[in-house]
Amino acid sequence: MYLLDLFGTAVFAVTGSLAAGRKQLDVFGVMVVAAVTAVGGGTIRDLILGIRPVFWVRDTNYVVLSVAAALVTFVVARYYKMPESLLLVFDAFGLAVFTVIGCEAAMRQSAPVLIAVITGTMTGSAGGMMRDVLCGEVPLILRKEIYATASLLGGVVFLLMSAMGFRFWMSGSAAGLVVLTTRLAAIRWGLSLPKFIARDR
Amino acid sequence: MYLLDLFGTAVFAVTGSLAAGRKQLDVFGVMVVAAVTAVGGGTIRDLILGIRPVFWVRDTNYVVLSVAAALVTFVVARYYKMPESLLLVFDAFGLAVFTVIGCEAAMRQSAPVLIAVITGTMTGSAGGMMRDVLCGEVPLILRKEIYATASLLGGVVFLLMSAMGFRFWMSGSAAGLVVLTTRLAAIRWGLSLPKFIARDR
Amino acid sequence: MYLLDLFGTAVFAVTGSLAAGRKQLDVFGVMVVAAVTAVGGGTIRDLILGIRPVFWVRDTNYVVLSVAAALVTFVVARYYKMPESLLLVFDAFGLAVFTVIGCEAAMRQSAPVLIAVITGTMTGSAGGMMRDVLCGEVPLILRKEIYATASLLGGVVFLLMSAMGFRFWMSGSAAGLVVLTTRLAAIRWGLSLPKFIARDR
Repeated sequence: MYLLDLFGTAVFAVTGSLAAGRKQLDVFGVMVVAAVTAVGGGTIRDLILGIRPVFWVRDTNYVVLSVAAALVTFVVARYYKMPESLLLVFDAFGLAVFTVIGCEAAMRQSAPVLIAVITGTMTGSAGGMMRDVLCGEVPLILRKEIYATASLLGGVVFLLMSAMGFRFWMSGSAAGLVVLTTRLAAIRWGLSLPKFIARDR
Repeated sequence: MYLLDLFGTAVFAVTGSLAAGRKQLDVFGVMVVAAVTAVGGGTIRDLILGIRPVFWVRDTNYVVLSVAAALVTFVVARYYKMPESLLLVFDAFGLAVFTVIGCEAAMRQSAPVLIAVITGTMTGSAGGMMRDVLCGEVPLILRKEIYATASLLGGVVFLLMSAMGFRFWMSGSAAGLVVLTTRLAAIRWGLSLPKFIARDR
Repeated sequence: MYLLDLFGTAVFAVTGSLAAGRKQLDVFGVMVVAAVTAVGGGTIRDLILGIRPVFWVRDTNYVVLSVAAALVTFVVARYYKMPESLLLVFDAFGLAVFTVIGCEAAMRQSAPVLIAVITGTMTGSAGGMMRDVLCGEVPLILRKEIYATASLLGGVVFLLMSAMGFRFWMSGSAAGLVVLTTRLAAIRWGLSLPKFIARDR
């Protein structure tokens, strides 16, 4: 699980770097946006739940990995075009892992189930939202394709199965699969949630 | 007081949903922005004061209500135009309630009086600021009409009266009335604070 | 050190006010943006490290000073044009002080060295980033001239010297000098970090 977590962190750092690159940030800005994307969701989760200090202060691997991934992306992107579809799959994978970890963290604090669903979604999505705010854009996940919703579904599955007594690895895998398939299906067929339509505007 | 608090939460969630709707967010985005608007100010207050976990983790009614208000708004706004002036009055009411709650929270932590004024204003206004940042705009309350200032005035009244030994319900009502009348007067006559004017630009 | 800290706070509040002024915020907005710029970095640092309540709740001088500096700037800027180059030098000075304080805070919590470097940079730069986000812009320090990098270098020097057993005032002064000269050199010769360049876009 720890290795999967680090993998998710690296993937999120890469997507953060690419977003920063589109805004022509410098190498420091790329590192910051990459780190915020990778550890931002988990940071907000820890603050909300009152876990202190936040996880990446306790285990610096997350930061080291984020910064390393940002630097590699910074260099590699000059010479190669990143295969976008592969990145999307990796990102969906990271979303799945982060969701399970976020739910688990809330459960370990014996927070209510609703809160666990929220922190799961938050761990997966808040980093990407902070990335978009830093890049001066309305967060993508609030307006395009099913993303956080995949995470929400996975969180519900995880908590239901945990409540039914399944072991961590079983409910975690099932939840992860739900996130992954929902998200990949959304990408494949361009599924979106209905948009807000107001009368008389 | 608890019921008033929930009422304020619902109203803020509705204004958050409408702001999200103007940006064409999807139903998930609307829920997120609504929840951030409704509980964002109190969340920052709790983090700043070191109250943990934050209030909506301890009492999930706030989140349930925010999400429900967002969904109702999402559906209703398709068929009816919300009466804007009524919403403004309700919002002023929510601001009054949140201000008193924010001051009270700081006092219970025996924070300095100045901090209580700040957390009162923060509880009322920070959610709206986060809403605007998420929607990609410079927060309205930093540039238009008297809003946070009404909250500030109310906070001062609340703390003065509390210091003079008045009971909670008396100082709370008086402070709430001050916020409400200041804000409604500002809306009615378009009162604004002076803007920053720089020489030689 | 405390006086230097207050000086840095005032300078950051002035730069925050001027940025708010460029966006035509009103006097309340100017105060908020000034305070966020001045105490925002240290607030995030305290939240991340789990220090609670945050520093300006324990010592209200920081807030009083920020608000006072904002009001003075608000009035003075109507009649005089602030000498921009002097402000940049003062700001570099504030960055130096905040960096040392941020590193020191992490060390006192016996956080890992890497975290101390990060909280040092954060204390110096996160306030400015929040200022720019509130003003609806992509943070300057992520894309222009060497700024946070100066802070980063200073942090490394401070921690190396502390690890080698130098007293606080010696490693602090040396680190401060490194920040100051790096930043001033960057301003003088317009030094920037390399920007992100992606192939095929």
